[in-house]
Amino acid sequence: MKKDITPRKENFSQWYLDVIKKADLIESTEVRGCMTLKPYGYAIWENIKKILDEEFKKTGHQNAYFPLLIPKSYLNKEASHIDGFAKECAVVTHHRLKTSENGEIEVDPGAKLEEELIIRPTSETIIWKSYKNWIQSYRDLPILINQWCNVMRWEMRNRPFLRSSEILWQEGHTAHATQKEAIDETEKMLEVYFNFGKNYLAIPFLKGLKTETEKFAGAEKTYTIEAIMQDGKALQCGTSHFLGQNFSKVFDVKFTNKEGKVNYVWGSSWGVTTRLVGALIMTHSDDDGLVLPPKIAPVQIIMIPIFKNNEEKKEIENTFKDLNIFFAEKKITAKLDSHENISPGWKFNKYETEGVPIRIVIGPNDIKNQTLEIFRRDTKEKITIPIAISKNRILNLLDEIQENLYIKAVDLKNQMTHNVDSYEDFKSIIEKKRGFIYAHWCGEADVEKKISEETKATIRCIPFEEKEEGICIYSKKKSEKKVVFAISY
Amino acid sequence: MKKDITPRKENFSQWYLDVIKKADLIESTEVRGCMTLKPYGYAIWENIKKILDEEFKKTGHQNAYFPLLIPKSYLNKEASHIDGFAKECAVVTHHRLKTSENGEIEVDPGAKLEEELIIRPTSETIIWKSYKNWIQSYRDLPILINQWCNVMRWEMRNRPFLRSSEILWQEGHTAHATQKEAIDETEKMLEVYFNFGKNYLAIPFLKGLKTETEKFAGAEKTYTIEAIMQDGKALQCGTSHFLGQNFSKVFDVKFTNKEGKVNYVWGSSWGVTTRLVGALIMTHSDDDGLVLPPKIAPVQIIMIPIFKNNEEKKEIENTFKDLNIFFAEKKITAKLDSHENISPGWKFNKYETEGVPIRIVIGPNDIKNQTLEIFRRDTKEKITIPIAISKNRILNLLDEIQENLYIKAVDLKNQMTHNVDSYEDFKSIIEKKRGFIYAHWCGEADVEKKISEETKATIRCIPFEEKEEGICIYSKKKSEKKVVFAISY
Repeated sequence: MKKDITPRKENFSQWYLDVIKKADLIESTEVRGCMTLKPYGYAIWENIKKILDEEFKKTGHQNAYFPLLIPKSYLNKEASHIDGFAKECAVVTHHRLKTSENGEIEVDPGAKLEEELIIRPTSETIIWKSYKNWIQSYRDLPILINQWCNVMRWEMRNRPFLRSSEILWQEGHTAHATQKEAIDETEKMLEVYFNFGKNYLAIPFLKGLKTETEKFAGAEKTYTIEAIMQDGKALQCGTSHFLGQNFSKVFDVKFTNKEGKVNYVWGSSWGVTTRLVGALIMTHSDDDGLVLPPKIAPVQIIMIPIFKNNEEKKEIENTFKDLNIFFAEKKITAKLDSHENISPGWKFNKYETEGVPIRIVIGPNDIKNQTLEIFRRDTKEKITIPIAISKNRILNLLDEIQENLYIKAVDLKNQMTHNVDSYEDFKSIIEKKRGFIYAHWCGEADVEKKISEETKATIRCIPFEEKEEGICIYSKKKSEKKVVFAISY
Repeated sequence: MKKDITPRKENFSQWYLDVIKKADLIESTEVRGCMTLKPYGYAIWENIKKILDEEFKKTGHQNAYFPLLIPKSYLNKEASHIDGFAKECAVVTHHRLKTSENGEIEVDPGAKLEEELIIRPTSETIIWKSYKNWIQSYRDLPILINQWCNVMRWEMRNRPFLRSSEILWQEGHTAHATQKEAIDETEKMLEVYFNFGKNYLAIPFLKGLKTETEKFAGAEKTYTIEAIMQDGKALQCGTSHFLGQNFSKVFDVKFTNKEGKVNYVWGSSWGVTTRLVGALIMTHSDDDGLVLPPKIAPVQIIMIPIFKNNEEKKEIENTFKDLNIFFAEKKITAKLDSHENISPGWKFNKYETEGVPIRIVIGPNDIKNQTLEIFRRDTKEKITIPIAISKNRILNLLDEIQENLYIKAVDLKNQMTHNVDSYEDFKSIIEKKRGFIYAHWCGEADVEKKISEETKATIRCIPFEEKEEGICIYSKKKSEKKVVFAISY
């Protein structure tokens, strides 16, 4: 059956766009860089949100909501303090439209704002401005807050889920009495992301620290989770920042400690976006379309009856009904598609491109034999088993698929991980295989820059591994340990 | 114990603000009309969201997400079609900041947008623009979509939860093959809101139709749920619009029906906002602060130990631990506050102003007697009962409180509902008692306007009751049935 999906080997970029289009995840709009998340695409994000939200709450965080618009002067404060401040922002300058003489709607020039407002690119400034009111004493600490919202960064290049002007995300913002507590929090949330990747997305993230060049401008340290895609390019999937006292100093947020001494508070912030959906696609999907881990899939099981008359239909649907009661009890999302004017083949194709983990088909022969056919999306295996033993088999199969996808992703990561000791080898791998490349680096920013200019590879992270001295592949200077380079999205 | 809350009788407006402040629900910001929803305030909204989201899904709706920014030309299309188009909008005109010569951040004049973008005041235009791509045939219908998001309307006057520039809300947008289906949907969603009010918010809404003057400019018919507050003013709590073919005609959204004929599709839209939190406050709360129905309360039970030494503390906490296991099983949110340096009185006061439905206290004497003390926030009754029988008693008490609050709110509504046959009586009630006033109205917009100018009362809705002819209290012309007037927020 023709799926209209460009094979990965032919053109990975086009394959990615085709998979998204066929699974009906997103629609582009006339607004620069803004995408509509269609119901199926949004449902994947909803599942991510739901699970992460529970994890955040389990680790003591509360949700709150801060304004969309930030006065320009707040960013001014940040900018005066921080180099590398992001300037591609949407600016609100007026607050009224009017009808012109020719009946067209136009911006009312009389409704110009005294101070321009910026659509939040991230909320550190407006949140720390608030925290100043919330924090006086050590008793007010820690503050552990998360926000689910939209942010906006004006992007010239766009790519579904990976890069867009409007982004849906969560941003955690915490305040602590001590440096240690803030660092612990930063590392704890990195672990939350890492475990979420392992246990739900079936993605084995690489954890590590960003270099000075790559870190968030407002942070002392940026921790990152990186994943390797099937084309060998790395994707930054989330970051957790130790902010030190940077924002508390800019917004004058002090507290009195137990001993009565006044000090600036310590901060962290951490976030993931809908980019995780892009990571899911480029990690697991294949030339037939989307492949989703069962724990993230909006529909985990699709049930398709094949029948020639109403009697058959009724009997098959009754069997499905019984199965569905069991699935509902187990909190499995199963859907029955018994549309009559659509061929089974068309349906098979549809749910395959949508990445539904398990398809169950029951036809007239199955009813006679009391069997059903199970198709698993990840390996494309089909088995026919007795209905009598099917319930637990299907339940276990969901776990097997989840595990298999994780194992495959670990394999991918291993295959895509290289270790080099010379710049020659480094360049050759970048050219031929890409992937994560462990190599010694002297720690100097200009060397990092030169390597990036010459090869387009950047340091994705300094991994949390034991020190092992060596020689920088570029400068030949001493290096404490290998860092991880890659070509990245 | 001093609560710093202005009594309702003295100044209802100030009471409202005091209750919000003491319960720490919201913080105002320097951004005009934008509020920060603090964790406790946001948690109430989160509960509302969670329950409504389930109800929307049960009735076949899916969530999606459309862009924040709307090209001005889309609104132009709407405006050319619809009078009463809302013009107080935030307008984005530029997409970049830059650092000026003196080091200040300023808007980059070179980054002016070709077409201005409007922060969505509501999403009909951008959604119907999309629906044009989604709909070709009757097989594509109905489309049943909801969106949880932020919208912005530039407001000069602000009031926490009731009126603000940025609003969190949900907006349902549906498309149907027939007029009847679209009307059925509009009415069904009104019922969803109505039942949510009754079963969760403990608010008995009044349902009805808006008059031509009061309806949403883009709608054929606007249905509304209205509630009466303790000061006798009405609060519009949600609306459901039958859009007819207004938006499908503006955005050219046609479909081919089963018979091969092409026609414009029929639409509905419906929404509720964080205003529901304001409705909760002004319906149930009292001079001691917030009162929350158990089904909406972020914390349903607060457990406070009273102890003089560690041994007592341990024993009491063990009892609470056992209770909490039971609560967790029953999905009841209970919290233990065993902070040592805070007096029990201070804690009692705090959770009372926060509206926690049940407080359980165990002291050393209770341990001796194997009893505990229960305080219910709604009636302020205290009872002491044996621990052995407390679990089910507490469970039942949550239901009792929920029911009692609903009964009280029904009583309030009944007391606040008046029936008049003359304009004299009408004016006298508006002046002395306010409330919902049933009165005959001839159906003419200018009469509606004159009554409103003279008394400030508007027609809140035309209720769904049997026709009963009479004489308009103002024009003395014939009237089909009584409509409901009130002074509203």
